[in-house]
Amino acid sequence: MYADRIRLASLQDKIMSAAQAAELIEDGMTVGMSGFTRAGEAKAVPQALAERALRTPLKISLMTGASLGNDLDKQLTEAGVLARRMPFQVDSTLRKAINAGSVMFIDQHLSDTVEQLRNRQIKAVDLAVIECVAITEEGHLVLSTSVGNSASFAILAEQVIVEINLAQPLELEGLHDIYIPSYRPTRLPIPVLSADTRIGRCAVQIDPAKISAIVISQQADSPSTVLPPDDDTQAIAGHLVDFFKSEVDAGRLTNSLMPLQAGIGTIANAVMHGLLDSPFDNLTMYSEVLQDSTFDLFDAGKLAFASGSSMTLSARKHAQVFSHFERYKSRLVLRPQEISNHPEVIRRLGIIGINTALEFDLYGNVNSTHVGGTRMMNGIGGSGDFARNAHLAIFVTKSIAKGGAISSVVPMVSHVDHTEHDVDILVTEQGLADLRGLAPRERAQAVIDNCVHPQYREALQCYFDQACLRGGHTPHVLQEALQWHINLEETGRMLAC
Amino acid sequence: MYADRIRLASLQDKIMSAAQAAELIEDGMTVGMSGFTRAGEAKAVPQALAERALRTPLKISLMTGASLGNDLDKQLTEAGVLARRMPFQVDSTLRKAINAGSVMFIDQHLSDTVEQLRNRQIKAVDLAVIECVAITEEGHLVLSTSVGNSASFAILAEQVIVEINLAQPLELEGLHDIYIPSYRPTRLPIPVLSADTRIGRCAVQIDPAKISAIVISQQADSPSTVLPPDDDTQAIAGHLVDFFKSEVDAGRLTNSLMPLQAGIGTIANAVMHGLLDSPFDNLTMYSEVLQDSTFDLFDAGKLAFASGSSMTLSARKHAQVFSHFERYKSRLVLRPQEISNHPEVIRRLGIIGINTALEFDLYGNVNSTHVGGTRMMNGIGGSGDFARNAHLAIFVTKSIAKGGAISSVVPMVSHVDHTEHDVDILVTEQGLADLRGLAPRERAQAVIDNCVHPQYREALQCYFDQACLRGGHTPHVLQEALQWHINLEETGRMLAC
Repeated sequence: MYADRIRLASLQDKIMSAAQAAELIEDGMTVGMSGFTRAGEAKAVPQALAERALRTPLKISLMTGASLGNDLDKQLTEAGVLARRMPFQVDSTLRKAINAGSVMFIDQHLSDTVEQLRNRQIKAVDLAVIECVAITEEGHLVLSTSVGNSASFAILAEQVIVEINLAQPLELEGLHDIYIPSYRPTRLPIPVLSADTRIGRCAVQIDPAKISAIVISQQADSPSTVLPPDDDTQAIAGHLVDFFKSEVDAGRLTNSLMPLQAGIGTIANAVMHGLLDSPFDNLTMYSEVLQDSTFDLFDAGKLAFASGSSMTLSARKHAQVFSHFERYKSRLVLRPQEISNHPEVIRRLGIIGINTALEFDLYGNVNSTHVGGTRMMNGIGGSGDFARNAHLAIFVTKSIAKGGAISSVVPMVSHVDHTEHDVDILVTEQGLADLRGLAPRERAQAVIDNCVHPQYREALQCYFDQACLRGGHTPHVLQEALQWHINLEETGRMLAC
Repeated sequence: MYADRIRLASLQDKIMSAAQAAELIEDGMTVGMSGFTRAGEAKAVPQALAERALRTPLKISLMTGASLGNDLDKQLTEAGVLARRMPFQVDSTLRKAINAGSVMFIDQHLSDTVEQLRNRQIKAVDLAVIECVAITEEGHLVLSTSVGNSASFAILAEQVIVEINLAQPLELEGLHDIYIPSYRPTRLPIPVLSADTRIGRCAVQIDPAKISAIVISQQADSPSTVLPPDDDTQAIAGHLVDFFKSEVDAGRLTNSLMPLQAGIGTIANAVMHGLLDSPFDNLTMYSEVLQDSTFDLFDAGKLAFASGSSMTLSARKHAQVFSHFERYKSRLVLRPQEISNHPEVIRRLGIIGINTALEFDLYGNVNSTHVGGTRMMNGIGGSGDFARNAHLAIFVTKSIAKGGAISSVVPMVSHVDHTEHDVDILVTEQGLADLRGLAPRERAQAVIDNCVHPQYREALQCYFDQACLRGGHTPHVLQEALQWHINLEETGRMLAC
C-alpha cells in the first residue's frame, strides 16, 4: 500500500489510524509537531488527540515550527490538551487561553527553539508528529510544504509518528534542504553563501526504528488569509520602492537589491507585490515564508530565486503553482527555520528584512506582539532574527487602526520586541523615516515628520517638545509616557480628540 | 629616529607635533579614533584638537571603538568639539552634554558600527587617528592595547594620523589578529572555530601613502577603575558558580564550561574572580575586554586562552602583566570588535555571556543604559551582541542601589535594551532566576522569589498579583507600571516605605 509514499517496505506494518497513533501520546509529554505558517502541519493525529482528550483528559507541551492551520490550535485548546505551547501561534481561541493564563506560552525567536532543545536547555521532545509526502527506502523523511523545526524534532525525539499526506504532491520531494548544525564545541560555519546555496540533504535522516506509527491523511493545508493590497498598503509599498530607488542612486544597493525577507501577513505581502511595478529585477528572497507575492514575482520575471522555510499560498495561487510546479521548483528551496532565520547567514548575506509592527514609538522601539502591553497577539516569530542582523531592518504598519481610535505611532510602546538599536527604517502609509545614524532626538523628529497620522501629529509633537524640556538622551515624560495606552484601555480611544 | 617603531623609512618625514597633526582635522569632518574600554586610544592628537578648538572653534563627528581614557571625551566635550559621538562612552562630562541634547550620541551594538560604515549607511570616516606601537616595513599598522574599530577606520578613511606611543611596549606586536569580513554579496564565513583560532594578520594593511602624519606620544592608558569585590558581588559570583555546577551535574556543561564573556565593570570582574575558587578549569574567554580577572585566572592556572578586543588593567596588574608578558602572550589574542562581538561567532561557539544590568523587570526585560528611562549612562556596548546569541545570556546587578532608595528589580523597566526573548539568567546578591523555557507569569514569580531585595519583595508581588487579576500573557497594570520610576523622580525613592 502507498508503495510510492512508503518506500521502506518494513515500515508498512506501522500504518495505523490517527486515533491509534494518538494513543502513543501520553499525558505530560512534550510533543514536537511539524507546521510553520499554516503549512505542512501534522493534521490527523492532533485532531485525533483533541477528540481523545474530550473523552480522557490529558495535557501536553506542544512545540511546532510556527503557526498551525486547520484550526488545530483551536481544537487542542478547546479539548484542554495544551499545558504549554511554543514558539508561535496565530489562533484566536488559543490566544484567549494564553491571555487568561491557562496555557503557558513561550514566545521565542524562531531560530532559537531547536538550539535550546539540542543543548537540553528546555524540556526534551518525547515524541514528534511530522507530516511528510514520503518515506524513502532508507526510512528517511521527505517533508511537505514546510520544514520549520520538523527535522530537529524528528532527530531529537525518542519516537516519531509520520503523517503521509496524500493531498500534498510528491513533486515536493527534492525541494527541501535539510542541514543541522553540528554540536558545539566543534560546530562549523553554516556554509550558506547565497540564497540559492544548497548545503544539506533532501530528506530527514533518522533511524527508521524510531518511527512508531504511520498515519495516512488527505487534508490540504489551510489557505493563506492574506488580504489583497489596499490604498494604505500600496502607499507603504510605494514609499519603500522610492527608498530602494534612492539607495540604488546612492550606490548602496544595486538594481537586484539584496536578498529580501518579508514577514507573513497582508502588509508585507503587499510590499512584495509593490516590487512588481518597480525597476528592480533579478531579485532574490531569503525569507521564512513564501507567500503569493513570491510566485507573482517569479511569474513577472522579477525573482531569480527564493529560499524559505514554508510555502503558504491562497487557494487560487496554490492551484496555479501546483499545476505547473516544475516552473518554480529549481528556483526554490525550503530550509529548517534555524537556517532560514540564522543570525550567521542573515548577517553574511545582508538581508533586507521587512516585518510588520503592531506599534512603534518616537524613538523607533517596536512592539510586534502585545496589545496594550499585556495581551499577546501571535508572537515575535522571526522578526527579531532578521531585524537584528539585517542590512536594512524595516518595519511597516498602517499609522492608525480601528478607524483612528488607535495610533500605531506612540510616545512610548507598551511592550518592546525590537529596540531602537535594531530598527533602521519605519514606514506607514504617511511616509518613511530613515533612522540610520540618527540620535534619539533626531529619530523622534523623523518619525513625527514622516510616519504619524495627521490626526495624532500635533499631540505627538507636543509630547516630544514637553519631554525635551525635561532633558535626557531619550526624552520622556514618565508620567505621560503610557497615557495613550491607558486612555485606550479606559475609553476605547488613545486621544479624546 | 624611532627606527624600531617606524620601519618604513620613507614615513620618517611624516613625523610632526600633535598640534600640527590636529590641524589636519577640519570642521565638520567625521573622525574615527582608536580606543576601546579606555585602552589604546589616540591620546596626543585629540588633546591637541581640544586645545585648538578652545582658540578656533570646530565641530566633528567622533567615532571610536568604545570608551576613551585620559579624560579625552571630557576635554573634547568642554572644548565643544563633539557634534556627534558613537558608539559608546563612559565620561561624566560627555554624558551631561548627551543628556542635555547638545551632543548627538548614537548608541550602537559594538559589532555594528563598521558594518554600517562599510556599507556606507552612516557618514564615511574622513580621517582616522590610530594609536600604534609600530609601523611595519610595509607601512602597515601594529596596534597597541586595543583593536576596537581601528583597523576598519584606518582602511576606510581617506587619511590616517598615526600616534606611535612609546609608553606602549613593542611586545604587543604579534598579539593582534586583524581580519576584515569581505564585502557582500561575496562574503565568506568568518573562520573562527574556537576562542584561540587566529584568522588574520598581525598588522593593519593600508596603503602607507594614506598616512598623513605620525605623532610620537608617551602617555599611558588610564588604569582600570574597577572596584574590588565586595560582599554583594561575591554573593552574585557564588550564585553563578553554584548554577554552573548544577549545569555540569545536568550534563549541559563540562568542567571547562563554554567560552566566557564578561562585560566591563566591577560586578562582571568580580564574577570572573569568583571562578578562581571554583572546580572549573581549562576555561577559555571569548570576550570584548580582558580585565584584571583574566590575568588572575591565567595566574591561577584556570584559564587556557583569552580572546578580546582590548586589555584594560589596574595600574598594579598592568605592571605585573607587562613585567612578564611572555607568560601570557601565546595565550592571548586581540581582535577587531566586529569579530570579538560577531553574532556568527558568538552563536557558533556558544558563549556564556555575563553582562551588567542597570535594572530588570518582572518579565526579564533588561535596561542597560537609561536612568529613569531618559538619561543615558554609557551605552549598550557589546551586551546585546552577546546576549542575543549566547548559549547562556546572563545579566547581573545588585538588587538595590543608593542605600535602598532604588530597586534594580522593577515592575516594568523604564527603557528596554534586551527583551525577555534574549535573557536566560538573572542574578542579584539575593539569588539567581533561571528563566529558560518559562512563560512570562512563571518568569515573574522566579524573579520575585529569587532576585528582588526583601525590602521590595512584597510590593513587587503585590503588583504582579494585581496585574494577573487583569489578565494578559504579560500582565501589567499600565496605570502603575512606571510608578516606581516616577516616585524616584519626584521623591528620591522608588517606594515610600
